[in-house]
Amino acid sequence: MTRQSDPASRWEVSPIGIVHSPFHGQADIPRQPAFAGERAIGTVTVFPPYAGGLADLEGFERIWLVCWLDRAREPRMRVTPYLETGERGLFSTRSPNRPNPIGISPVRLLRREDAVLHVADLDLLDGTPVLDIKPYVPRIDAFPDSGEGWIRHRNDPPKGPGHEAT
Amino acid sequence: MTRQSDPASRWEVSPIGIVHSPFHGQADIPRQPAFAGERAIGTVTVFPPYAGGLADLEGFERIWLVCWLDRAREPRMRVTPYLETGERGLFSTRSPNRPNPIGISPVRLLRREDAVLHVADLDLLDGTPVLDIKPYVPRIDAFPDSGEGWIRHRNDPPKGPGHEAT
Repeated sequence: MTRQSDPASRWEVSPIGIVHSPFHGQADIPRQPAFAGERAIGTVTVFPPYAGGLADLEGFERIWLVCWLDRAREPRMRVTPYLETGERGLFSTRSPNRPNPIGISPVRLLRREDAVLHVADLDLLDGTPVLDIKPYVPRIDAFPDSGEGWIRHRNDPPKGPGHEAT
Repeated sequence: MTRQSDPASRWEVSPIGIVHSPFHGQADIPRQPAFAGERAIGTVTVFPPYAGGLADLEGFERIWLVCWLDRAREPRMRVTPYLETGERGLFSTRSPNRPNPIGISPVRLLRREDAVLHVADLDLLDGTPVLDIKPYVPRIDAFPDSGEGWIRHRNDPPKGPGHEAT
């Protein structure tokens, strides 16, 4: 017998740390953080009660930042994605405006100084609260050939001078 | 000027749906869901207010289930991972027992029937509340060569008859 579902359940989350980034508005955030280089570097400061949990994180090339997207707006179930004309179902997009505005960002861990993580490939606004940090484990997380649905055509690399196809 | 960090902040999350899986206890869950085949198949039932957000999800081979790990225990900042002898910092592990017990699972989307998603490669307990669903986008999410820190030696594929190195 399966457990009962209860749409009225509520749980509390609270920050374990905070992002410091060069991005103060959505328009500042690079569309592809992994190709934004020096522009997308920042830090995560972890609050004292949680600092002891950071041991052994160094050595991982990437970490997941699970964040509360505190400047997200009210969600709508159909949205028009960036650079698109038609509407799509919200859950088929990466819009920040979601019923639970939780973001997952696989950032590059440059180094750790005690409770401060220096990270690159950042796509988060300055001041974003961090709810969790997990190691990025390719065997669990990486599916490079996974089929992409409607987003596929947007991911064709830009063509022409100055743009390298990757 | 950066935004103020406030460790005392609290936000509420609530489920958008629920997982139905064959797993009723932690010991049932396969260590590597992607290799567990038929054993790791289940469904996600999305609650009516959110069903409209599922449009266009079909066509994505994988989706992220962002879940509230409702049977997680009190977190400790140092934990002894499965099959390990020494302690590690919590945030360098994928232990479910975290300050905010949020899990991220890249499951395979088999098909959608209205508000029910049939999924494979599932590693979640039956009845787990779902907080968010996102499309898996390799360009954002897949870093197959990302260095693994202390977990590396555990990820060596098992050797010997019956085990294929992958």
